Amino acid sequence: MKYSKRILNTPASFIRRILAISADPNIISFAGGLPNPTSFPMEDIQVSMDSIIRKYGDKLFQYATTPGYEPLRQYIADKYNDQHQLGLTADDILITTGSQQALDLIGKVIINEGDGVIIEEPGYLGAIQAFSLYQPEFLSVPLEQTGLDTATLSAALQQPNVKCMYTVPNFQNPSGLTYSKENRLKVAQMLQGQDVFLIEDDPYGELRFRGEPLPYIGANDREHSILLGSFSKTITPGMRLGFIITRNKELMNYINIAKQASDLHSSIFSQILIYDYLINNDYQTHINKIIDMYREQSDTMLAAMDKYFPDYVQYTKPEGGMFIWVTLPKGQSAMELFDKAMAKNVAFVPGNPFYTTDDSVNTFRLNYTNSTTDAITEGIKRLGSVL
Amino acid sequence: MKYSKRILNTPASFIRRILAISADPNIISFAGGLPNPTSFPMEDIQVSMDSIIRKYGDKLFQYATTPGYEPLRQYIADKYNDQHQLGLTADDILITTGSQQALDLIGKVIINEGDGVIIEEPGYLGAIQAFSLYQPEFLSVPLEQTGLDTATLSAALQQPNVKCMYTVPNFQNPSGLTYSKENRLKVAQMLQGQDVFLIEDDPYGELRFRGEPLPYIGANDREHSILLGSFSKTITPGMRLGFIITRNKELMNYINIAKQASDLHSSIFSQILIYDYLINNDYQTHINKIIDMYREQSDTMLAAMDKYFPDYVQYTKPEGGMFIWVTLPKGQSAMELFDKAMAKNVAFVPGNPFYTTDDSVNTFRLNYTNSTTDAITEGIKRLGSVL
Repeated sequence: MKYSKRILNTPASFIRRILAISADPNIISFAGGLPNPTSFPMEDIQVSMDSIIRKYGDKLFQYATTPGYEPLRQYIADKYNDQHQLGLTADDILITTGSQQALDLIGKVIINEGDGVIIEEPGYLGAIQAFSLYQPEFLSVPLEQTGLDTATLSAALQQPNVKCMYTVPNFQNPSGLTYSKENRLKVAQMLQGQDVFLIEDDPYGELRFRGEPLPYIGANDREHSILLGSFSKTITPGMRLGFIITRNKELMNYINIAKQASDLHSSIFSQILIYDYLINNDYQTHINKIIDMYREQSDTMLAAMDKYFPDYVQYTKPEGGMFIWVTLPKGQSAMELFDKAMAKNVAFVPGNPFYTTDDSVNTFRLNYTNSTTDAITEGIKRLGSVL
Repeated sequence: MKYSKRILNTPASFIRRILAISADPNIISFAGGLPNPTSFPMEDIQVSMDSIIRKYGDKLFQYATTPGYEPLRQYIADKYNDQHQLGLTADDILITTGSQQALDLIGKVIINEGDGVIIEEPGYLGAIQAFSLYQPEFLSVPLEQTGLDTATLSAALQQPNVKCMYTVPNFQNPSGLTYSKENRLKVAQMLQGQDVFLIEDDPYGELRFRGEPLPYIGANDREHSILLGSFSKTITPGMRLGFIITRNKELMNYINIAKQASDLHSSIFSQILIYDYLINNDYQTHINKIIDMYREQSDTMLAAMDKYFPDYVQYTKPEGGMFIWVTLPKGQSAMELFDKAMAKNVAFVPGNPFYTTDDSVNTFRLNYTNSTTDAITEGIKRLGSVL
């Protein structure tokens, strides 16, 4: 065989193909997962760019240590300690080349071929793609209005090959759903005493526009809890900076070796630039601006759906983040609807790539963060006309 | 098993440990592989930083395409076409998060467990580490003064599991050796008709301070040739930008999928910043400045070795790049010498991590690019005193 089994088993990103189709500026696209460009603090970053060479010198340009820039890791530890009382030190943080790399590193370190990976259904396709390279068996657990279906989770946890569990507890991608406090507690109880790594991927957690912040499922577990964060949704995805948090020293040591082998370290230039931005600006005021915008965009989309969608079409009502998930009546095809919508110059992502099995296709994902409110209303009106 | 077999089989970077030991400013360190900071064009990059937001706008900060910034890929294609007549288009180039990621992506795409990977002995430890994650069998071929030992190569190419061959043809790391034109032609002939990928890793090629540039071994092979390049040794390693070149479309498609899964794309901010620097400055004049400095540093080290090392100690004479390789008489231990040298506050890298087997340890690597000429002379004098 010329190529590896693992690459032949890994799907190309369906979304990247959809994005290519819908790049035409005449198309109203709800297909992407792009932050609104107003979430990029460009003027403040320009101020940092004007001074970082003077302030930090040639270490911006030289090789750097694998875990990442220590003051940035300390900043992250302090923030999570303030907001979530996790008792972190800088050594519990490793900077990654975007959260996508965190998924690859975790796959490298813990997944053997055939290992069971519990994942939400629908699940984040970037995780499905990253883990697929390590040839696991996906164990799907339905995600419902208030969190995971605990009966299915219980059965999955009893599988002899189960190794880890991947969740997006806040404003999940693709569903927009948030695990309730009760569901988090129940899941934490079910995991107690199990030798199963819990990966909580939380790129959107700061972008809550309704309701109260909730504790992480693994907040009290030092050994099995892995938390992923990112600057992509709040400062810039273009610089590719995310981070892995775990208080398990042995696991962190293996992640560090995998990181050395994978890209040595993430851009120290970008790490210092973001750090300089963070310590010299009011980050929360910046976040609040994004939250206000996304709330308005989400409300506009929901109001239009209420007005233009037939009653038999169901959809989620996000408390934050970037997505709404739509469910058509059983038997209707989201792929067929995609073709009809494209004929009206509207794009979305059919649900297919968010399932590890191919049998549920009456769902699709809408993104509201990268369209004007006028475009949102017009796009939903057109979509309603083909439903 | 809690962790993956692959991570348990992957060595931690020995060099990163040595660097930690030798970070003390009182130590004269020839252990690193760091470019001299004067190779970073900081003033010219500051000029680009002053204008890129105005010139390129929010696309610096947004998600970007997986293969990389098209104008940068076109720039690279044009350069290799000018210098090496490879007939490349931008689509033959994929930007990676440093060359280290190129090694990881290639391992992901082509290596199954047990596949044969031909590698130079001594070989680049970053490649040994990256490929180890995919659990190959390393097939070592001795690297001699003028290139690979062709008798051993011939035997390795007859192994039924052989999948790819990894080489650093110019100023190899760790040996500083360069394949002669005749050896390149001979190796190319031996590979002809074989279904074996040839990976030529060339981060130092532009830093030739003696002799004439030589053609790539795979220059005439469209299907099996993979060429790796980097901006780390000529502009900045800190931004982590390298690239993969291959004219094999099927292979490039798989590398693209592996890149999506691994980190989605490399920093678009850094890609555009480097591109803006490249098109607005005289890059060759900058390179010439680095070459002049490294020639002087190399000459200084060689002159000191000639003066202070006993005659029975052998060493290579590089035509470019960053390293000199020293061979002690058979039976002497480079690890023991390391301890004696550290007692004199001089550091180097013992040869051990550059072998896939553990039996040759009478060799060590010296780096000359990151020390002043005075420090080079003093350090070699001290090293000579413990030989």
